[in-house]
Amino acid sequence: MSYSDLIEITGRVNDFLNAGSVLSWDARTMMPPGGGESRSKQLATLAVAARNLLCSDEMKRAQEGAEAECAGMPEDSPEARIVAQVRTAIDYHERIPPALLRRKTELGSAAQQLWAEAREKAAFDLFAPALSEMVEINREMAQAIGFDGHPYDALMYRFEPGTTQDGLTKLFARLREGMIPLVRAIAEADQPRADFLYRDFEPEAQLRFALSMAERIGYDTERGRLDTTVHPFEVSFTRDDVRITTRVYKNFLPAALFGALHEAGHAMYEQGVDTAYTRTPLATDLVSLYAVGGVSFGAHESQSRLWENHVGRSRAFWANHMGDLRAAYPERLDDVSEEEFFRAVNRSEPSFIRVESDELTYDFHIMVRCELEARMVDGSLEVDDLPDAWNAAMKDYLGVDVPDDARGVLQDVHWSSGQIGTFCNYTIGNIMAAQLFDSATTQNPGIQRALDGADYTPLRTWLTENVARHGRRFSRDELLQKATGRPLDPEPYLTYLTSKFSDLYALA
Amino acid sequence: MSYSDLIEITGRVNDFLNAGSVLSWDARTMMPPGGGESRSKQLATLAVAARNLLCSDEMKRAQEGAEAECAGMPEDSPEARIVAQVRTAIDYHERIPPALLRRKTELGSAAQQLWAEAREKAAFDLFAPALSEMVEINREMAQAIGFDGHPYDALMYRFEPGTTQDGLTKLFARLREGMIPLVRAIAEADQPRADFLYRDFEPEAQLRFALSMAERIGYDTERGRLDTTVHPFEVSFTRDDVRITTRVYKNFLPAALFGALHEAGHAMYEQGVDTAYTRTPLATDLVSLYAVGGVSFGAHESQSRLWENHVGRSRAFWANHMGDLRAAYPERLDDVSEEEFFRAVNRSEPSFIRVESDELTYDFHIMVRCELEARMVDGSLEVDDLPDAWNAAMKDYLGVDVPDDARGVLQDVHWSSGQIGTFCNYTIGNIMAAQLFDSATTQNPGIQRALDGADYTPLRTWLTENVARHGRRFSRDELLQKATGRPLDPEPYLTYLTSKFSDLYALA
Repeated sequence: MSYSDLIEITGRVNDFLNAGSVLSWDARTMMPPGGGESRSKQLATLAVAARNLLCSDEMKRAQEGAEAECAGMPEDSPEARIVAQVRTAIDYHERIPPALLRRKTELGSAAQQLWAEAREKAAFDLFAPALSEMVEINREMAQAIGFDGHPYDALMYRFEPGTTQDGLTKLFARLREGMIPLVRAIAEADQPRADFLYRDFEPEAQLRFALSMAERIGYDTERGRLDTTVHPFEVSFTRDDVRITTRVYKNFLPAALFGALHEAGHAMYEQGVDTAYTRTPLATDLVSLYAVGGVSFGAHESQSRLWENHVGRSRAFWANHMGDLRAAYPERLDDVSEEEFFRAVNRSEPSFIRVESDELTYDFHIMVRCELEARMVDGSLEVDDLPDAWNAAMKDYLGVDVPDDARGVLQDVHWSSGQIGTFCNYTIGNIMAAQLFDSATTQNPGIQRALDGADYTPLRTWLTENVARHGRRFSRDELLQKATGRPLDPEPYLTYLTSKFSDLYALA
Repeated sequence: MSYSDLIEITGRVNDFLNAGSVLSWDARTMMPPGGGESRSKQLATLAVAARNLLCSDEMKRAQEGAEAECAGMPEDSPEARIVAQVRTAIDYHERIPPALLRRKTELGSAAQQLWAEAREKAAFDLFAPALSEMVEINREMAQAIGFDGHPYDALMYRFEPGTTQDGLTKLFARLREGMIPLVRAIAEADQPRADFLYRDFEPEAQLRFALSMAERIGYDTERGRLDTTVHPFEVSFTRDDVRITTRVYKNFLPAALFGALHEAGHAMYEQGVDTAYTRTPLATDLVSLYAVGGVSFGAHESQSRLWENHVGRSRAFWANHMGDLRAAYPERLDDVSEEEFFRAVNRSEPSFIRVESDELTYDFHIMVRCELEARMVDGSLEVDDLPDAWNAAMKDYLGVDVPDDARGVLQDVHWSSGQIGTFCNYTIGNIMAAQLFDSATTQNPGIQRALDGADYTPLRTWLTENVARHGRRFSRDELLQKATGRPLDPEPYLTYLTSKFSDLYALA
């Protein structure tokens, strides 16, 4: 069998995964209440079919044939990378015992119910036994996958390959060094007014405005659409059908708009992948088994955070679009200036809840989770001691007293479904967004001038050229090296935060 | 391997087919324009996966084990029926050479484009070569599938098992005998006014009213939803998620409402299937490879036509709901009486176009198609002679002169996609609807009294009990035998039509 067989079979794997994505999108946006039970079974069948086809004898023979066929090609050619990625993915999945995977899936649905009940009652004890078992399963997964340094490395591999516990520890230490002084200083400073964000805003108008802004920055609705959901997400069914969702609160304006800008950033990554990569492993994550063209979860997050924060929360954006916003809500915002609105959507204030936290404090929520996950995985923290450790870390980093476990250790669904090792993506995304934005605007000063004039094409073109079009051909750090001249580097992010929040809060 | 393995594997086949249904629904209601190309590939992969799993060695071993295990069970027990149906379906699919199926699929997409162009230009010649090849492929399919009498029997098997060309010819002759006198008499009679159906009706209000009536007759929106589309359809993703669609014309009121009642009739069939049959072959058509609980396409159509016509176009329905309709469109219909509205939505007038035709003339459009299909399949009609034969039949049955091929032989998409043998379902559905409605109301006079009082529960309960709940356990004629005491019988349908249209048009 040959390279073309490999492409044909991986195309079918991609089809199964994309079909699963359609079913998931539907479940979160359109499905009537009754559909849940059968939908879970359909999703499970598709996931197993994708995994089994990937690890089939047919695929292995095709991979071997393709490897021989592509032996003389440059190591970073699309063909050589595809052949290598298929090999890596087969190895990865074959290391995980099916029985262990089944235990995880079966525990997952029971654990999610227990978690929901525990959160409802703010009673961690109800969830602790299931979480202990989930941690144990993840420890076994880590052993099966294998690692050089820390078992947590094996769990992060699926989401952010190459990330190590050691590297993360150093990265977080540097971030804290730069960010904690800002948080402390802001605690002493005056807060800008933000009352006008909580007025009545007609939901349909919010959605229309959010979509118009997503289109304005470059989201292509000929190849996408916007719907509402509970927890906003982006999902692609190949580069030519990439959908976004947002949530609308009648009495809180920023959610719908910034949700849409964030998801549009994710979406433009997928919409920008080279058409030649469609249905191939360069647009299919065969390790995480998601049909995406983004090279890592963190790289994906970099695009959403870049458009949401570096563009959407910039002074220039509101200088340009405050008029559009006022036009969308006649008489609602006539008393609010561009500068006031810009300041309001950049308010920073420590909170207990990750998903409600602002640009500056968000990463502390991530650090808490990653550090506690790593300690549970290596056995240095018992599940029973988790709430105390959580509350202590929140006090230490953000100075807040967690009022109860529902607003503390129980706030996220991730652990109950067995996801351990994915939170680091958010902070890596923030760092990478700043690094890319800094390089783009330094390499090409016309990009910032264009943004100042509400022209988003030069920035989008630079990101497509330097990030999106490559799909999964290059690793995250190869991509950063090519685009910015260096691997992941927190300094541009710290410089950006320091400059932005010093200005906003008139810090010394 | 055992019966439980059979259930497990057929459950996965059902999952693939239902996943395909979700993707089709999405393509027809939600998908942005760009998504089409990759969607076709995803659908093809799912269809092949379902077919291959059905015909896999694993499935065959499970079927053999299950057959041995269930040998002592009653022939019509669910278990024995499942085992037999899986055997039949494997045999059916293995008789069709994969190369022939591939030719059909490949020709299908090209032929649909040629058909669209030919219809646009009213130039049959552009489509004739592709249609000739499609007929030839269907002739080869018929030979591969096998038949006792006419090759058309083999093609109808997939949609309406047990139907023969011989039986259909007799059935159609009887229908014509009863119906042509009605058509001729109506041509001489005065038509009721219908101008008010073409007023401006706000689309959103039409949808709300259509959904409220669908719910009123018993469509469960906790397990379903209504959307708009170009060609309305119903689709189920198991009994607990059954969706309907309709189309809305701003200036033609009946389309949205009767479309919704029709599709709700289909949907209540699926929603009423025994919960124990979920994901089993008794809710999966393993021959046609659709994940449906209906026992044949005609049986399905009987439920949609029953609710649309016997209920929705009845005098009692409008006596009860004209007030709801007027309330839905303030001031639009104040000058229209219950009786006038009832008469307007039952106007009968020969037309060229099947999808625009009324209850009485619809079956003639079906007869034309079935008769011409059978003659093309047995070689007694050449494709080049098809337009003349079409036009002659339309003149003969309905007295109309077809103005051009676009409004004649080119009006339906079916042949271009290779579907030959499916049109009979519509007329069988009409016949079966009348037969079931007649038995229901005869067996239980309370059903008609309830309908007169706008209570749809007794009729729905009778249909669930006698039709829906059995899923695919009994054949269509077994079902009719149990419910009505006889197999398919056109007499109640002719009696119904004669009575209804004699009354409407004051015929002698």
